[in-house]
Amino acid sequence: MRNIKIIIEYEGAAYHGWQYQKNLPSVQGTLETAIFKLTGENIRVTAAGRTDTGVHARGQVANFKTKKNLTLNQIKSGLNAHLPNDIAVKSAEVVSTDFNARFQAKRRVYQYFISTEHTALMRNYCWQLFYSLDEKKLNDLSTKLIGNHDFGAFCRKVVQSEHKRCIVYESQWTRHNALWVYRISANRFLHGMVRTIVGTLVDVVRGRFTARQFDHIFNAGDRTLAGPAAPAKGLVLEEVIY
Amino acid sequence: MRNIKIIIEYEGAAYHGWQYQKNLPSVQGTLETAIFKLTGENIRVTAAGRTDTGVHARGQVANFKTKKNLTLNQIKSGLNAHLPNDIAVKSAEVVSTDFNARFQAKRRVYQYFISTEHTALMRNYCWQLFYSLDEKKLNDLSTKLIGNHDFGAFCRKVVQSEHKRCIVYESQWTRHNALWVYRISANRFLHGMVRTIVGTLVDVVRGRFTARQFDHIFNAGDRTLAGPAAPAKGLVLEEVIY
Repeated sequence: MRNIKIIIEYEGAAYHGWQYQKNLPSVQGTLETAIFKLTGENIRVTAAGRTDTGVHARGQVANFKTKKNLTLNQIKSGLNAHLPNDIAVKSAEVVSTDFNARFQAKRRVYQYFISTEHTALMRNYCWQLFYSLDEKKLNDLSTKLIGNHDFGAFCRKVVQSEHKRCIVYESQWTRHNALWVYRISANRFLHGMVRTIVGTLVDVVRGRFTARQFDHIFNAGDRTLAGPAAPAKGLVLEEVIY
Repeated sequence: MRNIKIIIEYEGAAYHGWQYQKNLPSVQGTLETAIFKLTGENIRVTAAGRTDTGVHARGQVANFKTKKNLTLNQIKSGLNAHLPNDIAVKSAEVVSTDFNARFQAKRRVYQYFISTEHTALMRNYCWQLFYSLDEKKLNDLSTKLIGNHDFGAFCRKVVQSEHKRCIVYESQWTRHNALWVYRISANRFLHGMVRTIVGTLVDVVRGRFTARQFDHIFNAGDRTLAGPAAPAKGLVLEEVIY
């Protein structure tokens, strides 16, 4: 029984997120169907990040165990042949049997894209926002998120039992003409966390909150104080580091 | 009567190219309809590049004359409100009345995108090609195109009366992981020229032609010798320089 690690790219628009749901299209469900068509096996796939409805991935990592003796190229090509064209398997490799894509991930990297000018080619992959943003202000606030903090303020679904501490390694905005990119990496992410951070940062820049209020929201850990979540289509799971 | 210059971005998939055609959707026709809705004027729009069916633009330039006293922001926002979301007006400015987007363009810049790995997010904007390419070989050949040459070998529609000389300023491949980008700029482009160049270069790299045969094809100026055109969806009109 080999354990196969795959890297997957997908456009989230057509899916109710990564996670399998009965009667709703999900990336996981679609991938498991493709695996069944290729191998005849009913296999559960484990992924590093349970991306939300509409969120994209360029570097989602998943693993599954198979008894079939297919070459890695047959697995990659075979899955791509059975997958719709909004999901692509970019690579496949054999890993040790105890590798688990979710629990062994050390760091996830997300990017959020905003265009401050009308765009046709990026329309499905960014938030089109027609205020002028402020790179310095965005970065002054974003830098405060780096480190080991409670991110309850930016967590959509409140699961009482779960702690809300995350270690954020990178939290930075860069700008390429009218395209703004927020890059954040952390050991773990809470539900809706990146989109709520982005929505709240934009609310500061457009004057709905002051920088001091942002600090208060972050420290209070109360989701009801933060801004609305930025649209899902601007968010991409870029990479998972083990 | 003001002369308005606009920069337009569009996804070509839904259109039979830039140029107006009766009973077929075109970018020009769609834009002229939006102008009519905004201004009530039946206006002809002139563009720098008559992109083909399925070809995209990030920096198409067009101009039109209007009697309406709208601000530039009203023109930009108004057109975007009336346009489908696969066409976006990125900027609008007033230019001198003799400005003509087509005849005064000094240089057009195109980029062609190839992905040598399966991709979901770029699937509508590149040619997915699963051979290994050869950056050195591609650039050795592409460099030969720079300068003032007859490009008849790469011109799809043979219009007898028209000369086929173009001055190519840039012709270069760069690679970003699995994404290959061919950048070519010239004073003018013949019909289907970039796609036929790319198709022929790829045919050399995959062994259908030798480098010597490529030279012969280029020098002979006979379109029937060259390779097939690369798919339209990989091509983007990036910029027009005046």
